[in-house]
Amino acid sequence: MSEFFTLISPEAAFDKLRSNLNFIIKTQEIATEDAYYRVLSEDIYSPINLPSFTKSTMDGYAVRATDTYGATASLPTYLTLVDEISMGTTPSFHLSQSEAALIHTGGMLPKNADAVVMIENTQKTHSNEIEVCQSVSIGENILNIGEDVTKSSQIMPEGTLLRPQEIGALMALGITSVHVSNKPIVGIISTGDEVVHPSKTINPGQVRDINSYTLSALITSAGGIPKRYGIIEDDFDSLFSTAQKANTECDIVLIIAGSSVSHRDITSEIINQLGDPGVLLHGITIKPGKPTIVGIAQNKPILGLPGNPVSALVVATILLKPTISHLQGSKIANFTPTIAAILSQNIPSVAGREDHVPVLLTTNDNTVYARPIFGKSNLIFTLVNSTGKLIVPINSTGLIKDSQVDVHLY
Amino acid sequence: MSEFFTLISPEAAFDKLRSNLNFIIKTQEIATEDAYYRVLSEDIYSPINLPSFTKSTMDGYAVRATDTYGATASLPTYLTLVDEISMGTTPSFHLSQSEAALIHTGGMLPKNADAVVMIENTQKTHSNEIEVCQSVSIGENILNIGEDVTKSSQIMPEGTLLRPQEIGALMALGITSVHVSNKPIVGIISTGDEVVHPSKTINPGQVRDINSYTLSALITSAGGIPKRYGIIEDDFDSLFSTAQKANTECDIVLIIAGSSVSHRDITSEIINQLGDPGVLLHGITIKPGKPTIVGIAQNKPILGLPGNPVSALVVATILLKPTISHLQGSKIANFTPTIAAILSQNIPSVAGREDHVPVLLTTNDNTVYARPIFGKSNLIFTLVNSTGKLIVPINSTGLIKDSQVDVHLY
Repeated sequence: MSEFFTLISPEAAFDKLRSNLNFIIKTQEIATEDAYYRVLSEDIYSPINLPSFTKSTMDGYAVRATDTYGATASLPTYLTLVDEISMGTTPSFHLSQSEAALIHTGGMLPKNADAVVMIENTQKTHSNEIEVCQSVSIGENILNIGEDVTKSSQIMPEGTLLRPQEIGALMALGITSVHVSNKPIVGIISTGDEVVHPSKTINPGQVRDINSYTLSALITSAGGIPKRYGIIEDDFDSLFSTAQKANTECDIVLIIAGSSVSHRDITSEIINQLGDPGVLLHGITIKPGKPTIVGIAQNKPILGLPGNPVSALVVATILLKPTISHLQGSKIANFTPTIAAILSQNIPSVAGREDHVPVLLTTNDNTVYARPIFGKSNLIFTLVNSTGKLIVPINSTGLIKDSQVDVHLY
Repeated sequence: MSEFFTLISPEAAFDKLRSNLNFIIKTQEIATEDAYYRVLSEDIYSPINLPSFTKSTMDGYAVRATDTYGATASLPTYLTLVDEISMGTTPSFHLSQSEAALIHTGGMLPKNADAVVMIENTQKTHSNEIEVCQSVSIGENILNIGEDVTKSSQIMPEGTLLRPQEIGALMALGITSVHVSNKPIVGIISTGDEVVHPSKTINPGQVRDINSYTLSALITSAGGIPKRYGIIEDDFDSLFSTAQKANTECDIVLIIAGSSVSHRDITSEIINQLGDPGVLLHGITIKPGKPTIVGIAQNKPILGLPGNPVSALVVATILLKPTISHLQGSKIANFTPTIAAILSQNIPSVAGREDHVPVLLTTNDNTVYARPIFGKSNLIFTLVNSTGKLIVPINSTGLIKDSQVDVHLY
């Protein structure tokens, strides 16, 4: 049963998917040291003050600031050197008037000390005396208890993506395990009577499966777990039973179109039969990738991707990657870094669709140039030979040679 | 033994390391499907022509082009429909004059067919007859054998980083295993008498180990394998024996400075005693990260990183990441994508050093703003609270509010 849908933009397609989804992925507790690139499923509060003791931020001498007032290079103040503060220990003494103690960056201040004079602003005059050549004010070159992080304050909200610095910060607070969202499992169903496993010898008319592997790599890089269901013949019953299995076992299902003209209708029908609401939209305003299907069954996203490997990879980048983040509850702001380059030839386009064009970047005299890679068959090798891609906006009729463009790495 | 070195730029430091290194990392053969983000250690040549048969790039009708010459919408040509070409099969027939066969995208052309008419440019008039409304020339809408990739041509050189598209392209050619460089093993030695394992309760004066974990995450993301040697006390013999073990077991060694003033001299001395040439340089023109040591022993890179977690992470991003790529023989061009933003306040700097400043990105009316995050103690939480960082160039005395800046994600 064929249905009529108006093409919508990739952003609108993702919004429609997200707004129809109430899926909550399961969570697990894992060691913080293994939690790189995972998404927090809990708010984290600091169990301690950081620093947990008053410490020096410089190598120098712990002093009572008032003892240094008026000190200059020409008229220094002399202080009695009483001790050296060993790293990792609590000083056993307190400072009396006109006393100083050698302290290292991160060292704990003795009682009565309220500032640190940098070592560069002192001279050692005797074994037990220093000359201070610059005055310090109270609190100078020290960190007070809780100045970085206050005990019980929220330091990371649920939805935080754990980068190296978040891992380190958790460890600094003694938080050695965290609750994170499970990695979404993404089922991949390849179809097409002409498609064979890559390890097989191909006969004329046959091609090897590419999409199962490009998409597996993409899923892994996006923080998901790929689960391949192999190559299913272009037949409703086989495809339906595999899709049903994947819909049960996975968090997201990809059905990659075969080449038969009736295939797209089969995919729609299968998504509709798997459960409500079924197909949400059919067709997005993007090239390559237009014949994309977005649906939901059993409250899990199901994407029908075009069979062309370049199209499948473009659509997966645009729709699947944010879906993997969204299912984990990721709340990171979406900033996409790009490389500024000068376009080396015109790229014609059509208003009303977003063109994704592979480009090769080269550098000449510190200028980066982007040369579009056009391939007759839009084969995977156009992507292999490219550094990244540029996007011709939906309302543009093309990009002009010598204009500046923003190139996305894959 | 303290040595005098002139500070050099981060780029010059990496060049000096690279030019003094003859290390060849071992290689291994692995399944292509597991080779994502690995670096090829062999040139890859195509074992086949791609396509391996003449195929259609459109849904339509396989024809002999001459039979369509002169066809227009107002004066169509009529062809006899002889058969449908099933996907994945070799057509058992050949086309005679004025015959056409239904063909799908990727289908194999029958003998004597030399073009495909798109289905949109035809009408089916009878069960065995079509009307062709537009002529096609020889070769139109078809791909000839080897048109994408010729048998025996080089498709990927040694040093290629395997992205999703390279994985897919290898599979398309039936190359299901490849030789790649081993992932470099990076030994991490933390030092500092005040530093304790994150799982331990801290006493006043002590801090938990951060660097072992931020650097492990960074190494993993860069394609290396972290190997932690724990926290070693600030003592020459303990540190030397651990460094020697790591120098033997790993491909790269990181020694993270403790806080004692003599520590940097100890690290230099250890690197020198591990083997020639020992320390190559001491100090780079970057903030934070200046007291960095770069050396080589047993033909393996050894980096002495500052103990401050922010400094260690900045230096690792600049020096360790490219070293991990270099050891794998990666030959990818080095383009760094960034996000253009408007700076929301002045950032003072000093000419002669490159400042790495954490910034928080926010969006207002489609404009992205970058606000610098300054922290008194340069603690890891300045990075936790930031989206990315901007780099004040080495010869700049600062960046001005409202100017456009390029922000790097971590």
